[in-house]
Amino acid sequence: MSGGQQVCRHWCIAARPRGAPRTEDFCLEQSELPEPGAGEVLLETLYLSVAPVMAMYMSGEAVADLPALDIGDVIHGRGVGRVLESRRDDVQPGELWHGQFGWRTHRVTAMTPAERFYRFTATDLPAHLALGALGMTGYSAYCGLVIAGRVKPGSSVLVSGAAGGVGHVVVQVARALGCSPVVGIAGGEEKCELLRKLGCDVAIDYRAGSLEQDIRMALPDGVDFYFDNVGGETLMAVLENLSHRATVLLCGSISEYTREQPFGLTNYTRLRRHDAVMRGFYVYNHTAEFASAQAQLANWIREDRLQPVQNVVDGFEQMPAALMGLYTGRNSGKQVVRVKAGET
Amino acid sequence: MSGGQQVCRHWCIAARPRGAPRTEDFCLEQSELPEPGAGEVLLETLYLSVAPVMAMYMSGEAVADLPALDIGDVIHGRGVGRVLESRRDDVQPGELWHGQFGWRTHRVTAMTPAERFYRFTATDLPAHLALGALGMTGYSAYCGLVIAGRVKPGSSVLVSGAAGGVGHVVVQVARALGCSPVVGIAGGEEKCELLRKLGCDVAIDYRAGSLEQDIRMALPDGVDFYFDNVGGETLMAVLENLSHRATVLLCGSISEYTREQPFGLTNYTRLRRHDAVMRGFYVYNHTAEFASAQAQLANWIREDRLQPVQNVVDGFEQMPAALMGLYTGRNSGKQVVRVKAGET
Repeated sequence: MSGGQQVCRHWCIAARPRGAPRTEDFCLEQSELPEPGAGEVLLETLYLSVAPVMAMYMSGEAVADLPALDIGDVIHGRGVGRVLESRRDDVQPGELWHGQFGWRTHRVTAMTPAERFYRFTATDLPAHLALGALGMTGYSAYCGLVIAGRVKPGSSVLVSGAAGGVGHVVVQVARALGCSPVVGIAGGEEKCELLRKLGCDVAIDYRAGSLEQDIRMALPDGVDFYFDNVGGETLMAVLENLSHRATVLLCGSISEYTREQPFGLTNYTRLRRHDAVMRGFYVYNHTAEFASAQAQLANWIREDRLQPVQNVVDGFEQMPAALMGLYTGRNSGKQVVRVKAGET
Repeated sequence: MSGGQQVCRHWCIAARPRGAPRTEDFCLEQSELPEPGAGEVLLETLYLSVAPVMAMYMSGEAVADLPALDIGDVIHGRGVGRVLESRRDDVQPGELWHGQFGWRTHRVTAMTPAERFYRFTATDLPAHLALGALGMTGYSAYCGLVIAGRVKPGSSVLVSGAAGGVGHVVVQVARALGCSPVVGIAGGEEKCELLRKLGCDVAIDYRAGSLEQDIRMALPDGVDFYFDNVGGETLMAVLENLSHRATVLLCGSISEYTREQPFGLTNYTRLRRHDAVMRGFYVYNHTAEFASAQAQLANWIREDRLQPVQNVVDGFEQMPAALMGLYTGRNSGKQVVRVKAGET
């Protein structure tokens, strides 16, 4: 470790994507890592997260607390890594931490609050879960249902992007909380089969028919809680199917991230008739509850009540391909890339 | 009364309006009223309400519980009238009732639940208040702030269409509830002056500058409660100015009723970052609380804490002009038409 600078590889923005990113929008570069200074640590990246919102980062939008990126900048992204060197009292070599790594093989960082670093404590479970069911992805599901939504046993839960990183945890947490029926929306029969296996009472293939009618068929009394991962026309179809005092939980809008024209929601006024609410939430407004949620989710995994679906691709050089794959709609579960060979 | 059929005049849809209604879209007709049958009453119209949503009725949209109208149909609208004859035990001649009259000088009705008839009990106050501050208009303000919003003393309240029928009651009820600051949005200096007179700490003329910046200036810590009467670009400007855990109360969308293309809300996702909610409400989901709210509002009027701004136009033949006037943005307060000459 000591006695010479580490070499770090990183992926940068070569060009602004138009719609979904393409190969030529990425550029792989290399640099020397500085030694960690006072208050800094050196982390070796084990896994990096790949998420639909990254298209927004690449197009230069400031999302949440993350600064807007210029062409040439390293792409934002969360990762989990092992501490190689630490010049902080609260961080020890060998520990696993997840946080804002960017698309990098190594990271020297002062772990500023904006970088949202957390220690990964469920070390009996695979480290890549720190980017999925046991990281901010799983916490989005938990936070939406439990903290923002306060869902009740017996309520119906509908979730879009249900086979995705957040969605597949929503399905299983809703089940664990006693919600019923639990209905998932996904694209294609393969994903729908996965959803039924994970506990969905009904899985709706949005490509197969009329979504608005299929929702009505599955939930004739209306949707009590809708967990929205996709926005766009799917959200509109759900707004036509609300129950009295329904709650729409706004988590993500994958269908909107790669549009060239912004999406306009024309039927938000449907909330009126049903005394319904559309409730936004942001996991980083709820970091105080993260540790206990992580412990609860880890226990559900150990009890086999929550099966994380983690899609692990090997090799740092595969980052662009892994991201581009998300927009084709073929992936299920949480997409991560194994950066450090041999990690389980 | 007896010994011959009453003649009734009524206004019908002559043509579908494109955008705001024009004179040629209305047609005045006359017919004989049947004698009230068993379970029916005959009412003489004293006042009729005029409201922006009526353009929607005329374009054939089914709004709330009201059936969609065809060309030739009498236009929907609430009125207040005196019972001339009653064949019901629960309704006595001489009483005042408000409910669905349609644009008619007289009404024979079985008072079905869908027609939403209520007895007007504050008979020490002018009857036209049954269509304004003491009717569903005032109750929209009360219901939004108190029942749906549960606003708290010290919270900031922003209201659009603030000089309008609902809006001017929102301003004063917010004040009475101890909200602070109370900020109103309206068009033109005259209305802004009215708003300051009614108790607004700041009145924003949306025509005078950049609405988004003016809101930020008036409420630098963000909007706690936004009472939305107009929708459209105004709603979008507010969504850029939310405080943490803000509430947007969806009441009306006057800016959208006369558009030829539906309005698309592109920034609803702003709710996420602030853990904010957009809450719809519908007064007829809350009829149980109406009587006590009406009593509270009437007391505020008697104590001079609530000044109803009622704009009374004389003559049934003025109905179309009174409605068309709403879309020019010149009216303040609640617009009503005196149908029965000599009523106070």
